[in-house]
Amino acid sequence: MLSVSADGAGRPVVGSDADGDVSGASPSARILPVGLSTRVRVPASSANLGPGFDCLGMALGIYDEVIVETVPAGVALEVEGEGAEDVPRDDSHLVVRALRRGLAHAGLRAPGLTLRCVNRIPHSRGLGSSAAAAVSGLAAASGLISAAGLGSGLSHDELVQLSSEFEGHPDNAAASVLGSAVVTWTESADGVASYHAHRLTVHPDICATVFVPDTESSTSFTRGLLPDAVPRADAVFNLSRSALAVVALTADPRALMAASQDRLHQPYRATAMAPTSGLVTALRARGHAATVSGAGPTVLVLGTSPVPADVRQLAQGLGFDARSVAVAGGVEISVG
Amino acid sequence: MLSVSADGAGRPVVGSDADGDVSGASPSARILPVGLSTRVRVPASSANLGPGFDCLGMALGIYDEVIVETVPAGVALEVEGEGAEDVPRDDSHLVVRALRRGLAHAGLRAPGLTLRCVNRIPHSRGLGSSAAAAVSGLAAASGLISAAGLGSGLSHDELVQLSSEFEGHPDNAAASVLGSAVVTWTESADGVASYHAHRLTVHPDICATVFVPDTESSTSFTRGLLPDAVPRADAVFNLSRSALAVVALTADPRALMAASQDRLHQPYRATAMAPTSGLVTALRARGHAATVSGAGPTVLVLGTSPVPADVRQLAQGLGFDARSVAVAGGVEISVG
Repeated sequence: MLSVSADGAGRPVVGSDADGDVSGASPSARILPVGLSTRVRVPASSANLGPGFDCLGMALGIYDEVIVETVPAGVALEVEGEGAEDVPRDDSHLVVRALRRGLAHAGLRAPGLTLRCVNRIPHSRGLGSSAAAAVSGLAAASGLISAAGLGSGLSHDELVQLSSEFEGHPDNAAASVLGSAVVTWTESADGVASYHAHRLTVHPDICATVFVPDTESSTSFTRGLLPDAVPRADAVFNLSRSALAVVALTADPRALMAASQDRLHQPYRATAMAPTSGLVTALRARGHAATVSGAGPTVLVLGTSPVPADVRQLAQGLGFDARSVAVAGGVEISVG
Repeated sequence: MLSVSADGAGRPVVGSDADGDVSGASPSARILPVGLSTRVRVPASSANLGPGFDCLGMALGIYDEVIVETVPAGVALEVEGEGAEDVPRDDSHLVVRALRRGLAHAGLRAPGLTLRCVNRIPHSRGLGSSAAAAVSGLAAASGLISAAGLGSGLSHDELVQLSSEFEGHPDNAAASVLGSAVVTWTESADGVASYHAHRLTVHPDICATVFVPDTESSTSFTRGLLPDAVPRADAVFNLSRSALAVVALTADPRALMAASQDRLHQPYRATAMAPTSGLVTALRARGHAATVSGAGPTVLVLGTSPVPADVRQLAQGLGFDARSVAVAGGVEISVG
């Protein structure tokens, strides 16, 4: 466990948090009272589900928790678990930045803050830890707004919009907000992106297994491997599987193998992620609907029965830790 | 009404149909008895539904009917309605070719045939008349197999596969076979395409309107307007809408506007189909989820209430005849 005091920009804090505030709060923003508290729990997520690059996400039952209190001044951040050694760095500050953003959206500012983060979502593994951090902060803002008796807090639509703005794509964030699986889409007008999500009811027979390696991956690096133009035939290939994925996830899990095929992102990243790519290939050859989770290197398998022990052992031999995870519900916010 | 006698290749027939048989029937194929009859009814279809190029189709309540009898020799074809003046041409012969193909698939051949086609699906308008003709012939083969007491005929999977082979894409054919709306996909291995379809249960509130112009369109021409490569951003745009379209069609019709956006086919064909493109734009500006039906020039609107009279009149002024159509059931086959 590590404890540190810093403002949103990573600098030590001695008094007010007004300087360096990146939330966009106006000077006239109302300041929340001291003594409020909230606790939020946010699930991990897999984005880019199979063919659904930037548009299909699923919430997975690995949870980050954040407990926040308003105090007279300063920001005290305590981090336990994943990323604890890296504080103060982006992932941790993201919670604070998102919290301030959520308050600013409601015309509010925090006085001082204490935050305790219990991080269980592995970082830089394609399991949506950054999105979960943004959702945590925004959900904590929502909890504080409720705790202050200033209304019911931020709506799910607001949480999806604001959290997606931090990443520029909504499939992880919306899954963490809404839970289950989500179809997401982005409308752009006059340079402003508006993020949308529809929650799917995942078929009850579907179970998920993640294969998490020790190695990390950088989304910005792997995203750079994707070409600006793609063959139309490959786009059409993914179009049909993307539509089919909704069918497979909600109504007909037998279609999961066909519905998890992809030609638009995984092939381009395969050489930069050889172990992940090799595991996906090996799992699919055995009839498991395996895809890269997000930008990798974690592999996700969806099916109607648990992945058998011999396959888990095979993955273990390749450096991947197999873990059964529930399809998770959305963010939970407790007040008081 | 027009009547003509021809074999599968359009030549006058005086005796056996064995010469020029394009069905692939082996010489050892068993010949059906004389005196069998069947009647089939096949719906029109809209393919390329919105973002779902080559993968989303819907069956529409405009029906072609074909009545077939086995006779001692020759092929007598009688055509009523759409395309009657064009016999003997491809659309009409397609029914015979498909019928022979269906029989050959079951190791059978026809003796002679009489066919009466009642064509109501407008030709070359993007309403799937060719696919309906292929399905008609195959369904008639299925009916004759049943009538002969040689089993239950061709399965839906076989009808989808065989009818899609005639066109090289399954979205029209599968809609005509299965009815309702369909997600289709193609698996290719060793140069052989296998066509698949999943039938969606369309939300009961959804109603369809087609706007049919007098002008015709050639699918092969309009398909040639599509580029071999597309921007990845456009592919991703359509991916999300294609997944969302399944949600909108089955569960949440409020999403139909967003779910009918497209960047992969309609923009490339717009200049070649200015009136159609103009009507789509005008309808969407008024909040109607309009898309080009198939390769056009017909426009399809899906919504939860009928298109109002003033909008129909606007379309009429642009040369389009508005017609409310049911979301149709699949092919119907009567025997005896």
